[in-house]
Amino acid sequence: MSRVYNFSAGPAALPLDVLQAAQKDLIDYKGCGMSVMEMSHRGKDYDVIHQEAIATFKELCGLNDDWSVCFIQGGGSMQFAMIPMNFLTKDGSADYINAGAWSSKAVKQAQMFGNVNVVANCQKDIPTRMPEKDECKWTQGALYSHICTNETISGAQLKEIPETGSPLFADMSSDILSCERDYSKFSMFYAGAQKNLGPSGMAVVAIRKELAEKGAATIPTMLQYRTYVDEDSLHNTPPTWAIYIFGETMKWVKRMGKENLFKLNDEKAQKIYNVIDASGFYRGTAKKEFRSNMNITWRLPSEELETLFVKQAAEAGMKSLKGHRSVGGIRASIYNAFPMEGVDALVDFMKEFEKKNG
Amino acid sequence: MSRVYNFSAGPAALPLDVLQAAQKDLIDYKGCGMSVMEMSHRGKDYDVIHQEAIATFKELCGLNDDWSVCFIQGGGSMQFAMIPMNFLTKDGSADYINAGAWSSKAVKQAQMFGNVNVVANCQKDIPTRMPEKDECKWTQGALYSHICTNETISGAQLKEIPETGSPLFADMSSDILSCERDYSKFSMFYAGAQKNLGPSGMAVVAIRKELAEKGAATIPTMLQYRTYVDEDSLHNTPPTWAIYIFGETMKWVKRMGKENLFKLNDEKAQKIYNVIDASGFYRGTAKKEFRSNMNITWRLPSEELETLFVKQAAEAGMKSLKGHRSVGGIRASIYNAFPMEGVDALVDFMKEFEKKNG
Repeated sequence: MSRVYNFSAGPAALPLDVLQAAQKDLIDYKGCGMSVMEMSHRGKDYDVIHQEAIATFKELCGLNDDWSVCFIQGGGSMQFAMIPMNFLTKDGSADYINAGAWSSKAVKQAQMFGNVNVVANCQKDIPTRMPEKDECKWTQGALYSHICTNETISGAQLKEIPETGSPLFADMSSDILSCERDYSKFSMFYAGAQKNLGPSGMAVVAIRKELAEKGAATIPTMLQYRTYVDEDSLHNTPPTWAIYIFGETMKWVKRMGKENLFKLNDEKAQKIYNVIDASGFYRGTAKKEFRSNMNITWRLPSEELETLFVKQAAEAGMKSLKGHRSVGGIRASIYNAFPMEGVDALVDFMKEFEKKNG
Repeated sequence: MSRVYNFSAGPAALPLDVLQAAQKDLIDYKGCGMSVMEMSHRGKDYDVIHQEAIATFKELCGLNDDWSVCFIQGGGSMQFAMIPMNFLTKDGSADYINAGAWSSKAVKQAQMFGNVNVVANCQKDIPTRMPEKDECKWTQGALYSHICTNETISGAQLKEIPETGSPLFADMSSDILSCERDYSKFSMFYAGAQKNLGPSGMAVVAIRKELAEKGAATIPTMLQYRTYVDEDSLHNTPPTWAIYIFGETMKWVKRMGKENLFKLNDEKAQKIYNVIDASGFYRGTAKKEFRSNMNITWRLPSEELETLFVKQAAEAGMKSLKGHRSVGGIRASIYNAFPMEGVDALVDFMKEFEKKNG
């Protein structure tokens, strides 16, 4: 086996422990005589997987019984539509921060359903950033407010959760459970699973039960939150394999200790930022106070050098370092499961590359 | 390894070949140095998986370039809503056959969007059945007509595809690629993957490109068919693992030879129906001419005996024979990947059980 260091922004590296257990059990899950992929979602064997995944996630986020954790297909992008479909009425309005490609997509879907106040817009700013506290003009009486805590493409992260004065919804696709957050501040938060949580194919949605009940009841069954809350994400066949790997990944987070992981995430990111800051060659994309610990983005003096960097890194076993096609540059995505050794290898490579080409 | 015979209605048995290959490659897919679950959906390695899956399915269904094959999250249930959302206008109408639990769900979602003509209703008939040809009152000028070719719960299957006079849409979740069908008769057909195609977590949707372009353009991006057609199901992160297993399953169908599989499916079903017909003890649920080759449903003289049957079968390594909770009885789901040996084991068990309890 020759595993590479996989810097992909998502789908992304999963814990090797989790993959090894999944491999071992793939054909015969713990003596059940079948693969998890083959199990009835109404059976006892699967039910344990489903319930444990929810319970472990709730424990890690510190969520009490006011909360429901739902598995909803369609990733974060479907949530961009489901949220306003359920909660934005024609005579009300919602507040959105637009701080990058992902929050911008959320804004566009919401505008199909009602009035959207963009309370701060730094979507196209370079260096990339999140809005300053006093820059946001929150609306009194907004139906809800929506933020994206980490912009995967720009590499900017919201370090402090704002006080918005209305129920707060957050897209945490790329930094959920990667740093200390007080999840009780939110009415709902969600994440496409394929970065910090598991494989692609679903969003994990934590929602206050009371909120789900307030959603519009006139929309299709599969697009109402109450369907998932009331039927425990088992109204129809859920993505059972993705839920299984998600559950195993959550158990891995618990085994590692989340505080320990948060600390490691800081250290991993800091190592790369240190190389950038010590160099006249590399140039960080994000404003320092908003630098993401998950997606480190930077430029080289020319696009030719960037192409060479990505190519030579791949040859040295470091894959998917190319920045998003919409912005170019370099991006190293280092989620929870990304190992420290991979960061050390990248740091060495960066120094060497600068020496040769700087 | 001790694999059981898994009669689950879905998620259901997958080809052992496919599972073994997935197991072997789980941590390091063909020397890429990572799991398929960890691959960027924009990378070259994943792209081969994605394109091969589509090409193999198109070849098996005999679809030309007028068709697009899309991977849409949410299973068949999401399609029940997406179809009318895209194609049913307030001033038009659509024809639906209601022949069981699944077509009934499709009708309900469609009624949220416009006028639905239920052209035949045998949803609650016992013995279960599909409508007769002359029973269906197709509407001239309907925007489209919708059928479910196989009702997984009732065990009734449409043997002949009707001429409806309007674009024909079909839910083929439980019998796609299991028997000879002329797929060119349809404007669109779809299947939740977790029965004949792969793991749960998506519907495979075959749609004429021209039709997708006619869909409403005012609905959320993730709920428009053109998003999937125009961006090759890569607008956002697709369920990559499910697509991979789907692709491998399609290659397995090709290796087996689909005509060969269709013949085996007939033989497998016939063996069980023969035991039922030769017995005064077992009573088939579906009318003979509409008996499903995929979901064989029958009753025993009492619910107590049914419970005992399911229990003793499970002890003998035959799992998930319990009928759907809404109707009771026994159900043996024997999709493409279900092996003949499992049918033989069931047939022996049925005869033995009748001797002891008949």
